[in-house]
Amino acid sequence: MIDLELERFVYFADLFGIAIFSITGVLAARGKQIDLFGVMVLALATSLGGGTLRDLALNAHPLIWIADPLLLWAAIGAALLTFGYCRFWVLPRRALLVLDAAGLALFAIAGAEKAMALGFSPLIAVIMGISTGCAGGVIRDVLTGRIPGILQQDEFYATCALIGASFYVLLHGHLDANLLALSAMTLIFVIRLLAIYSGFRLPVFVVA
Amino acid sequence: MIDLELERFVYFADLFGIAIFSITGVLAARGKQIDLFGVMVLALATSLGGGTLRDLALNAHPLIWIADPLLLWAAIGAALLTFGYCRFWVLPRRALLVLDAAGLALFAIAGAEKAMALGFSPLIAVIMGISTGCAGGVIRDVLTGRIPGILQQDEFYATCALIGASFYVLLHGHLDANLLALSAMTLIFVIRLLAIYSGFRLPVFVVA
Amino acid sequence: MIDLELERFVYFADLFGIAIFSITGVLAARGKQIDLFGVMVLALATSLGGGTLRDLALNAHPLIWIADPLLLWAAIGAALLTFGYCRFWVLPRRALLVLDAAGLALFAIAGAEKAMALGFSPLIAVIMGISTGCAGGVIRDVLTGRIPGILQQDEFYATCALIGASFYVLLHGHLDANLLALSAMTLIFVIRLLAIYSGFRLPVFVVA
Repeated sequence: MIDLELERFVYFADLFGIAIFSITGVLAARGKQIDLFGVMVLALATSLGGGTLRDLALNAHPLIWIADPLLLWAAIGAALLTFGYCRFWVLPRRALLVLDAAGLALFAIAGAEKAMALGFSPLIAVIMGISTGCAGGVIRDVLTGRIPGILQQDEFYATCALIGASFYVLLHGHLDANLLALSAMTLIFVIRLLAIYSGFRLPVFVVA
Repeated sequence: MIDLELERFVYFADLFGIAIFSITGVLAARGKQIDLFGVMVLALATSLGGGTLRDLALNAHPLIWIADPLLLWAAIGAALLTFGYCRFWVLPRRALLVLDAAGLALFAIAGAEKAMALGFSPLIAVIMGISTGCAGGVIRDVLTGRIPGILQQDEFYATCALIGASFYVLLHGHLDANLLALSAMTLIFVIRLLAIYSGFRLPVFVVA
Repeated sequence: MIDLELERFVYFADLFGIAIFSITGVLAARGKQIDLFGVMVLALATSLGGGTLRDLALNAHPLIWIADPLLLWAAIGAALLTFGYCRFWVLPRRALLVLDAAGLALFAIAGAEKAMALGFSPLIAVIMGISTGCAGGVIRDVLTGRIPGILQQDEFYATCALIGASFYVLLHGHLDANLLALSAMTLIFVIRLLAIYSGFRLPVFVVA
């Protein structure tokens, strides 16, 4: 893994992140009477939404999935497989949470790295990491009529992306690039899983 | 019609599509206690949303309605006329569905053609056709607090755009350009109407 | 105030508008069980959303908050202060409405001025004024699961931006630039407050 150049590493992070978020998009359709194509739309919006918003904000054209159709096929393929799989087998409820944690980790660091590579400041890189990681899920939740998970109390979610992206940005240039990216992703994934299993929460907004 | 250049043909498709989607935006305000200006906002977001997202994604600036204010006036005029009309006369409920089908047909092919003309791949052209056709309606539904129609079982909607845009892209260059565009639009419109009247549906996402 | 160049004037309008909308984003989280970070996300989306959409539509890169991180810190700082304040003291319900009116006034004119300065037509400048002023609030409402205020009957809201931005655009070049901007902002703020306190409304969309 260390032998890969960072660019390829980030590419694979985007690719896997897209496939994983596509699956979560399909799973969000459960019990909503959504048809095959609606599921595809939801999967594509969830998996490509974060990167699209990031690239629009950074004026980084062409958008990643326009520049490289393989990313598009990854999203479509993952959605079709999940659609088929779920007709016959049950996915444990926890699967969605764990996959989502992995997608968050991959996208947050890919987003931060892209902003750094384009010469934006560390602050912007952290913001881009958080929004790339979270935007897809927000779009998914708005489209299916939920209040976005990241706005709810029981989700220590975006904070994981904040911690991981800050860690990445602060140590950037001081560690081997691939090792750093991998560590930051692992950090996000582990914190997120700990938060899920321990029920850890941030203080809620309370009015006097 | 055959004498028009394709560019003008697509321009008129955009123009009529915008006016039609503007009307559907107004009609979506029924029974929601929305005031005149709120109705205008809804009409503009519905009619200009699809083309705006397409142009942003393709980095095709200026946006169509910025480049040509006539499109803006078409949206505003259609909305005002509908607002006034509906105070005195009843529009049959079916009218919204039929208009929406026409708008979908016009926008899907205009979107696909624009992507082709800018040199994007057929796959991207199909995706742009679908999103140009559907995005306005999604925005309209999210703003009025509904789950978007394209995500619901009883809508064989985006699939019509998929079929028509694929037909257009596959035969591109093999037929007279205007004839092809017109055929693809008719195809979408007819399939969509058949789906409405026959109640045809895609398989729903079911969990084992 | 007259001594400031217009550019700086608009800059301060953006800065104060962002801080104010950030506060309204935090206040919208009341009673929703949203945690600290969710509140931050809501505050940032509300305060930066309008300017981001405007800059994307006008292809004016880099986005204002990317070009100048101080705007980002203004949003973050205002949100944190409000979060802390509200744990101990009560903000009167009217405060949200008055702050929102001030933010609308600042953003609408900053948006119209930016479009004029970039050479767009008066019509586009008015549209940009309205959307810069209103988009943040729409995003805030969609994210917290409400039908956007601007689509509801009891809000004479976007119309204030329409009036103020039109006033600004029509008199542009005929008055001292700073004086005009200040007058247009005051106009919006006053009309909006009058509308709130008098209960003035536009005719509602009624079906025959």
